[in-house]
Amino acid sequence: MPKKNFPLSKVNQLLEHGPVLMLSTSFKEETNVMALSWHMMIGFTPPILACVVKKQRHSFNLLKKSKECVLSIPTVELAKKVVEVGNTSGSKVNKFEEFPLLEEPASKVKAPLLTECYANLECKVIDMKMVEKYNMFILEVVKVWIRPTKKAPRTIHHCGNGVFVVDGDVIKLTSKKK
Amino acid sequence: MPKKNFPLSKVNQLLEHGPVLMLSTSFKEETNVMALSWHMMIGFTPPILACVVKKQRHSFNLLKKSKECVLSIPTVELAKKVVEVGNTSGSKVNKFEEFPLLEEPASKVKAPLLTECYANLECKVIDMKMVEKYNMFILEVVKVWIRPTKKAPRTIHHCGNGVFVVDGDVIKLTSKKK
Repeated sequence: MPKKNFPLSKVNQLLEHGPVLMLSTSFKEETNVMALSWHMMIGFTPPILACVVKKQRHSFNLLKKSKECVLSIPTVELAKKVVEVGNTSGSKVNKFEEFPLLEEPASKVKAPLLTECYANLECKVIDMKMVEKYNMFILEVVKVWIRPTKKAPRTIHHCGNGVFVVDGDVIKLTSKKK
Repeated sequence: MPKKNFPLSKVNQLLEHGPVLMLSTSFKEETNVMALSWHMMIGFTPPILACVVKKQRHSFNLLKKSKECVLSIPTVELAKKVVEVGNTSGSKVNKFEEFPLLEEPASKVKAPLLTECYANLECKVIDMKMVEKYNMFILEVVKVWIRPTKKAPRTIHHCGNGVFVVDGDVIKLTSKKK
């Protein structure tokens, strides 16, 4: 699936509506991936976001030590795989082989891009002051890839307990906001 | 519209999918409301969330000084009003009268509940350490009201520039996660 550069100034259009993400990390010889719903934009330029990766997660130390990750945006076609990834700990299996997940190298970080996802955001951890208290990492998005195979990719949103709402109708209203 | 108590332990089911919220604040004689997309859950029990209210917003000082707010969840029927609220500054008009917005008293905070919204979350600011650097407030949800007039309320999600995606199909997969 060919990928294109996507402008950093429009990252909010990919993240602000709250889709479930896949977070991939890599440190030394180890690579992992997890599902992530707890994220939000906190700044436009450069694009900065906050996310919570709990201490108990295998990805926590990989993210803390490598200080970088890739956030990939799956569409509804990948929902089953996203849940399998979320249900499994990387301490026990190599999820890339287990499910399997296609991956390819990123350009600015060591963590892999997930090739099957609609978009990939390469991120650097820029602030870990909230990690101890809230398991919250502050990330700067440094490179974005988009895979424009569909006109209207439908992302998924976690509503708890394995229930997901899928993107429905799109409406356009006159907003002064970015 | 009659409202019912909603369990604090299930707040993630209301917020985790990333709906646009309405944030109402009240301090001394002044009350305001704004639209809010930049929020995320950061803890389950008690339900804790983070949100970004920029310094330039009229609500910023009201939230900072009162240390409490109400987050209300509008459904798609209110989308036009949500955008009007987002496009207008409370420094110039009383938005409750201008649009108008129905309100009623909350039980644990001074900020009003928005009566037309599907759910109302009464919140206390519990941490302001990230306000200076990121305009980020940490909130604890202390009381939740739900207005169960519809079986499947459809919330809206901001994709930037006045484009919103509306909740579509709901899918259930076997997740081990809350």
